[in-house]
Amino acid sequence: MDQLPVTKLNKVRVAKRASYDEATIHAILDEGLVAHVAFVQEGQPIVLPMVYGRIKDQIYIHGAKATRLLKQLKQGIPACLNVTLVDGLVLGRSAFHHSMNFRSVNIHGTARLVDDEQEKYDALVAITDHLAPGRWDECRDMTQKEANATTVIAVTIEQAAAKARTGMPIDDEEDYVLDHWAGIVPISTAFGPAINDCRLKDGIPVAESIKKLTNRSA
Amino acid sequence: MDQLPVTKLNKVRVAKRASYDEATIHAILDEGLVAHVAFVQEGQPIVLPMVYGRIKDQIYIHGAKATRLLKQLKQGIPACLNVTLVDGLVLGRSAFHHSMNFRSVNIHGTARLVDDEQEKYDALVAITDHLAPGRWDECRDMTQKEANATTVIAVTIEQAAAKARTGMPIDDEEDYVLDHWAGIVPISTAFGPAINDCRLKDGIPVAESIKKLTNRSA
Repeated sequence: MDQLPVTKLNKVRVAKRASYDEATIHAILDEGLVAHVAFVQEGQPIVLPMVYGRIKDQIYIHGAKATRLLKQLKQGIPACLNVTLVDGLVLGRSAFHHSMNFRSVNIHGTARLVDDEQEKYDALVAITDHLAPGRWDECRDMTQKEANATTVIAVTIEQAAAKARTGMPIDDEEDYVLDHWAGIVPISTAFGPAINDCRLKDGIPVAESIKKLTNRSA
Repeated sequence: MDQLPVTKLNKVRVAKRASYDEATIHAILDEGLVAHVAFVQEGQPIVLPMVYGRIKDQIYIHGAKATRLLKQLKQGIPACLNVTLVDGLVLGRSAFHHSMNFRSVNIHGTARLVDDEQEKYDALVAITDHLAPGRWDECRDMTQKEANATTVIAVTIEQAAAKARTGMPIDDEEDYVLDHWAGIVPISTAFGPAINDCRLKDGIPVAESIKKLTNRSA
């Protein structure tokens, strides 16, 4: 499926900023580092930042068994996830036309506990490699005790939408003659040079996955 | 009040990472660019990214009157806000001890419509200056029509907590002898040089607030 259905829940009000294209949605999810995951507990909305991974149309999050968010979500309740990439400040001649350039995805779905051992393993690989592609294979093997101590939750990308803004401010036509400065300030997420663990054994070079990451600045 | 009360709602499970100190919470809020705002609509959790501003213990968000989030929140329903600053990747010798360095604030409160004209004006100044301190005064004056077209919502910081992780990975003691690389990769939000609006009049220099912003890299 290339285009996701537009529903009451995922419809973006400003149509020109919306996309329901699966490839667009996946690309934003793959570039983000943190998903904000919302759920309802005793009538209260709760939102928490989580690292995540994606395999096809499944978003995986994980954590210690005692984590409140995971204890709630594993009951199979509705969840909403947002991933937002901030691309710049948009500064109009009027405060009213200030904005941000961004790419954002909202996902609505029902959370489920991942109890299949193979799916759980694959999900943990995806979450680790999401931070730095190839990192899982550089680590020492996961133990059964570690797998047992970790809860993994999946949310299927069912109802979802991407929303984005790009480009210059859109000022009121009569304001373009004014002497107020207007423009944009690009914003990016910068990865600094890797810092060795203070207890790293002598002579171990920075891992390949991390070298590649440091050369990226997205 | 320097320390916020610890309640069932705002209590952070891992105590060593938690702070209920008002100054700590405010500092994180003031550095963030986007708040993730969650609410419940017809039983469904919804979370959306919003720009925001802070005045004392009030968080303000704003938007067009037709915005779903604002139409819901102005009814005075519970809201949860999260602001997260990502400071780095934490890469242990085991995947299990991978993590992120971050500073994050969660706020639980009841949203209210700001209908007092002076408070609404002050809130819009705070939201604009949050993007770039001093920017409001550089813009052309807000019109009454613009004020009327904008909805402003306040959430009081009542129940809130900060959560943070810093420093190196904490590996299992027996793993420190392994030959796997471990360490951290710092992450920062970088502001690029300002780009003039393509319709900017000749001879207008970049605004002072924006020059200062460009020299910051937080």
